[in-house]
Amino acid sequence: MSEKKLAIIATKGTLDWGYPPFILASTAAALGYDVEIFFTFYGLQLVNKKMNLSVSPLGNPGMPMPLGMDKWFPVIGTAIPGMQSMMTSMMKSKMKSKGVASLEELRDLCIEAEVRMIACQMTVDLFEFDSKDFIEGIELGGAASFFEFAGESDISLFI
Amino acid sequence: MSEKKLAIIATKGTLDWGYPPFILASTAAALGYDVEIFFTFYGLQLVNKKMNLSVSPLGNPGMPMPLGMDKWFPVIGTAIPGMQSMMTSMMKSKMKSKGVASLEELRDLCIEAEVRMIACQMTVDLFEFDSKDFIEGIELGGAASFFEFAGESDISLFI
Amino acid sequence: MSEKKLAIIATKGTLDWGYPPFILASTAAALGYDVEIFFTFYGLQLVNKKMNLSVSPLGNPGMPMPLGMDKWFPVIGTAIPGMQSMMTSMMKSKMKSKGVASLEELRDLCIEAEVRMIACQMTVDLFEFDSKDFIEGIELGGAASFFEFAGESDISLFI
Repeated sequence: MSEKKLAIIATKGTLDWGYPPFILASTAAALGYDVEIFFTFYGLQLVNKKMNLSVSPLGNPGMPMPLGMDKWFPVIGTAIPGMQSMMTSMMKSKMKSKGVASLEELRDLCIEAEVRMIACQMTVDLFEFDSKDFIEGIELGGAASFFEFAGESDISLFI
Repeated sequence: MSEKKLAIIATKGTLDWGYPPFILASTAAALGYDVEIFFTFYGLQLVNKKMNLSVSPLGNPGMPMPLGMDKWFPVIGTAIPGMQSMMTSMMKSKMKSKGVASLEELRDLCIEAEVRMIACQMTVDLFEFDSKDFIEGIELGGAASFFEFAGESDISLFI
Repeated sequence: MSEKKLAIIATKGTLDWGYPPFILASTAAALGYDVEIFFTFYGLQLVNKKMNLSVSPLGNPGMPMPLGMDKWFPVIGTAIPGMQSMMTSMMKSKMKSKGVASLEELRDLCIEAEVRMIACQMTVDLFEFDSKDFIEGIELGGAASFFEFAGESDISLFI
């Protein structure tokens, strides 16, 4: 019996939205899935050697704020300068205190589990990314290479 | 012939993005699909007994504003304090006047149609949600429980 | 052997998030896939004859800013009035200079490749869209018509 396959398109480059691709990929790999992630658009940030991502509270009214901050700052208050970096460091320390792995750790888990990672060539060209900034083992490819794998996959997710 | 299966990951917790999981799940169930929704990240808000969600006009320049408000407030004007609650109540009354079911009604429809709902254990722990606040019948599970169902599904959607 | 099928739900109406549905659909069609896009929520903007979409830098801290603008405007600075239209025109000219097709061109490619496009009836009613504003060849349908196709598809994506 051939193993199951999971294909992911990772398109977001924020701290919070960077989690789902790596959590789902590493979990699936642990369950014996053959996994491929196609990084495109803002998601390309996730293959940079140095990820320097922020949470964006803007546009996330559904995000529960830590420490009851929402009592002091109504949602719209998140547009206050400095708020984003404060939220980002609070989220990071909260995750650390809860034993949640960092994005870098989850990415390493994926690499160890042989999750195949492809960076979208068009986005690299468009935003003039330097592929030397990418972690090792990243391949470059077009949307067609995504379909090669996804067309045979049991699960395809656009994240 | 076994019935078709739909697996949904619901990750957003705003009024507008709460609709797609419940609309798709209830429609599929009505068509005879076996449906499961895995609520994670901000999507956990959708299983709270009391949903208190807002529309976030920020980051949605594509959102048609009701009553020609965009003439008076250019998109960036949505950062004005008070704008979000105004947009939220306008959207709610517009939906009501158009006969669109509320999120609570759609969720009830899903429950009646026996859509299986799982809350992500990791997110519950991270944000210190109290599962007593969840509606009845919600199970707790990890990402692995999502794959158990999704791996056998005809359609998997990350919302 | 029957051909492969790709089903897309397009729900976003911004300049940046308008790209993935049309790029993926046209690529898949070129590879011989039978493709259908269901336009709903803010995604309905994508079938208007005149697309007038903006980039929304808000909520996209992962977006690399052109010309090192992020040195001058920290992320939160994107809430400055006028910033969005400036970002939009910069993104458009950058794409043009890089030879990336416009959204209209990609949409035309999809039409030529016989990608089937369906506009969500409920959203049309809710936002009082006038279907005369839609490009030719758009069908109207409900969520059930999405499942008719997606249930038989090899890949289903919620964008």
